[in-house]
Amino acid sequence: MVKTRAILEEYKTYVPGRSKKEIAEEYGVAEESIIKLGSNENPWGPSPKAKQAIIDSIDEINRYPESNHEYIKEQIAKYANVTKDQVIIGGDGADELFEVLAKTVIDEGDEFIVHQPTYTYYEYTFKQSNAKAVYATWNIEENKLDVDSVLNNITDKTKVIFLCTPNNPTGGLIPQEDIVRIIEATDALVVIDEAYWEFSEVNNVNLLKKYNNIFIIRTFSKVMGLAGLRIGYGLSNPDFIEKMSRIKPVFSVTVPSQKAVIATLNDEEFIKESTEKAITEREYLYESVNSIDNIHIYKSKSNYLLMDVRKTGYTAAELTSKLMSRGVIVRDCTSFVGLDEYYIRISVETHPKNEKFIEILKEIVEN
Amino acid sequence: MVKTRAILEEYKTYVPGRSKKEIAEEYGVAEESIIKLGSNENPWGPSPKAKQAIIDSIDEINRYPESNHEYIKEQIAKYANVTKDQVIIGGDGADELFEVLAKTVIDEGDEFIVHQPTYTYYEYTFKQSNAKAVYATWNIEENKLDVDSVLNNITDKTKVIFLCTPNNPTGGLIPQEDIVRIIEATDALVVIDEAYWEFSEVNNVNLLKKYNNIFIIRTFSKVMGLAGLRIGYGLSNPDFIEKMSRIKPVFSVTVPSQKAVIATLNDEEFIKESTEKAITEREYLYESVNSIDNIHIYKSKSNYLLMDVRKTGYTAAELTSKLMSRGVIVRDCTSFVGLDEYYIRISVETHPKNEKFIEILKEIVEN
Repeated sequence: MVKTRAILEEYKTYVPGRSKKEIAEEYGVAEESIIKLGSNENPWGPSPKAKQAIIDSIDEINRYPESNHEYIKEQIAKYANVTKDQVIIGGDGADELFEVLAKTVIDEGDEFIVHQPTYTYYEYTFKQSNAKAVYATWNIEENKLDVDSVLNNITDKTKVIFLCTPNNPTGGLIPQEDIVRIIEATDALVVIDEAYWEFSEVNNVNLLKKYNNIFIIRTFSKVMGLAGLRIGYGLSNPDFIEKMSRIKPVFSVTVPSQKAVIATLNDEEFIKESTEKAITEREYLYESVNSIDNIHIYKSKSNYLLMDVRKTGYTAAELTSKLMSRGVIVRDCTSFVGLDEYYIRISVETHPKNEKFIEILKEIVEN
Repeated sequence: MVKTRAILEEYKTYVPGRSKKEIAEEYGVAEESIIKLGSNENPWGPSPKAKQAIIDSIDEINRYPESNHEYIKEQIAKYANVTKDQVIIGGDGADELFEVLAKTVIDEGDEFIVHQPTYTYYEYTFKQSNAKAVYATWNIEENKLDVDSVLNNITDKTKVIFLCTPNNPTGGLIPQEDIVRIIEATDALVVIDEAYWEFSEVNNVNLLKKYNNIFIIRTFSKVMGLAGLRIGYGLSNPDFIEKMSRIKPVFSVTVPSQKAVIATLNDEEFIKESTEKAITEREYLYESVNSIDNIHIYKSKSNYLLMDVRKTGYTAAELTSKLMSRGVIVRDCTSFVGLDEYYIRISVETHPKNEKFIEILKEIVEN
């Protein structure tokens, strides 16, 4: 057997998520009636213009994709209100760019600060570069970042600080003044994950004008409705973008993905409506769950919400399983660092499915 | 400015390749008449079944792709004549799997052996993990691997040995007895790149039964006609596959890519015909260029061929530029380690375009 790296022993054998098809078969539910609240997607589907663009590009899929992304960068720059040389495109949603970031700044033994709970992929990726994770605190009760817990953990070895706003899975925002306090306290790169910014209607792009040590990361997997096509982008200063570009994967954004991005950005009405619908459904879910006595639900600025289910008498795993047997997929948050075994995250579905979910949830927890 | 890694200084600022559109505009050539011999693609296009599968999946692109790939692995296992647990799937063609390989076995200061010239991405990726490239020799004149140059470079630090067969860009094969000599001389992982194996009609899958230190890597970008969808796969022993799976990107294969893979593997006639047509056109190109006095062309077992153009009086860069002005894209091989400035690689196009290419080439070099 070939000798593998020591760090792999800290990673578990990969257990694949279960497909809708498998769940439908196991529980005898029709696949199309499954209510999927697990993955923070846009449930209304992609822009019709994106679908058409994919169909129009279908005779080109035997050819390599463009690697320069010049036109896409232009369109994103316009959307994000930056210049083209401040933009980098990644395949695999935002996830590939986390790997490129690690390869751009992390040497063995460096540290990165990450508040917990948050999106788990930062740590998954950065630990692979032999960097050490240092945990800061997300205050669950108040649903806000404990800024001092970040500041107090900055050392000479800190290379990257991750800030997720709105935070996944809690839905709380980090106020810009808190972000600025952190940026000004360090030379490390502050990575601001704005995957869900559209649902919060605020972002931190204005900081790019003033600070050189920030990297804003975003995705086409959420409001843009293209999770299945795996495109992300990052915004930073041109020098840093140039450095990252030297070592990024060259052809990782597929032909259909590139066409769909351009078509979606040109469909402003789609983006606006998708955002509004998600916010409406988020508030519907908040109000509906909030009226259930034995579940605590947190206010959210994203397209998902965190529920504390301990008073139902079920663990998150038990309730997740009960919901699944009724055709509802939610995210059991037990595996998130910083959360115990009683949290579940739900993201918005279309209104009829959200209504049905509330009905099923009540049947389970109110009886 | 955030401090970036020292290794980045060994990478050049990325210069994007030029798109067909740009070339068409600059030289006043119609985009559809461009003859693209530069990228070793399948010029006849993807399987019609793959195209239909993409169209059928278009309403699912707002949802995350499946991450388990169980069904795809089954189909690939059948195609490759292995078991499902010997298969790993990667996004970004074969390229993502090179990164996963590096992260699975490379610690700082380890060495990898790579014969030159060959596919440049091995070194591009592995150097990013602070591994040291050790060069072995591909004998250009005889178009074969100098096996001793590999064996003599094996040290205690050797973690990976890359063997590309058929070799890109030369087209020569590595006989299995030579591969076995190398495998038996080392505990390092021997990575056998079979991206183009179908065109050579031989492969090394039988070695998986006997040896644990090999990894065979393949792609859907060549005969399968899906370069624009970025899917690759690897074959090894189940233990090693499990280790790699722990740290690989989770969602990097897009929804359309997954559907297209399955449809293509189910279209055996397409694979067979694409292979046969490519071999026919390769031999046509060989014979045609071989009849040109001042160009030496090497026999190839792949879908591309290497030309030595020094006797034309042009460098590869000059001839590439002259061809481009006539709407022909070829691969100037000057940047390949182990080749001087007089080599050009051409891959097969459809027959009318190959005929046109020969006509244009003759006009340039015979006058």
